[in-house]
Amino acid sequence: MESRTINTLETRNTKTERRFSAEKMQKANLFETERMFADIYCLEPGQEQKPHAHVGSDKIYFVVEGTGRFQIGGEERDLGPDQIVLAPANLDHGVRNESQTRLVLLVFMAPNPNKG
Amino acid sequence: MESRTINTLETRNTKTERRFSAEKMQKANLFETERMFADIYCLEPGQEQKPHAHVGSDKIYFVVEGTGRFQIGGEERDLGPDQIVLAPANLDHGVRNESQTRLVLLVFMAPNPNKG
Repeated sequence: MESRTINTLETRNTKTERRFSAEKMQKANLFETERMFADIYCLEPGQEQKPHAHVGSDKIYFVVEGTGRFQIGGEERDLGPDQIVLAPANLDHGVRNESQTRLVLLVFMAPNPNKG
Repeated sequence: MESRTINTLETRNTKTERRFSAEKMQKANLFETERMFADIYCLEPGQEQKPHAHVGSDKIYFVVEGTGRFQIGGEERDLGPDQIVLAPANLDHGVRNESQTRLVLLVFMAPNPNKG
C-alpha cells in the first residue's frame, strides 16, 4: 500500500544530493514508490557495490560522472559518462570504482524490493 | 511473459541514441523489460509531450540537457540539467520545451505499460 499522499511536484537536484564517505560507497534515495525507486550512488576510488542479485526486480545504472567497472551476469565492462546499463532481475550485478576519480551513478529499480 | 533472453551485458550510449526531428518530439527506447522501460526524449524548442496520465505506472524524468517546463498534477515548474522529477501514477503530467535550445530527458517508467 502507498503510505503517503503526493500533492506537490516532487523534484530533486542530483548535484546537491551527492554525498561521499571515505568509509564506503554512499547511497542517497531520490524517489521511492511502491513500484520503483531512484537512488544516487557515490563511490570514491577503490569503493564498490559487491555483486548481488534481486529476485524479480530489474536495475538500471546511468553513469553521471567517472568510470565504473560493471559486472553483470559474469560479464565485466568499464562504462563512463552518458552510458546506461541494464542489470536484469535475478542476475548477479555489481560495480567497482577502479579509477582515480569519483564515480557518480543514478540507479533505478523496479519493482521496489523495499516495498510490497 | 518475458519474450527475450538476456545473455550479455546490455549497454547504451545516451549521447549517440539522441535523435531530433523538426516534426515533433522524438522518443528512443534504451531498455525495455516487462517491469520497466528507459527512454530518451529529445525536444526541439517549442516541442512538447502533451499532459497525459498512466494508470498504475510511475514515471521519472531526468534532465540531461536544456530546460523543460514540467507540468505534473496541475503544478508547473522549469527544470534544468541535473534535476529529476517524479510523475506518480494516475497524475496528469507533460513537458514542454519553452526554451531556445534543445531539451534532452531520460525517462524511466514502472511497471512498463507496454507489457503485461
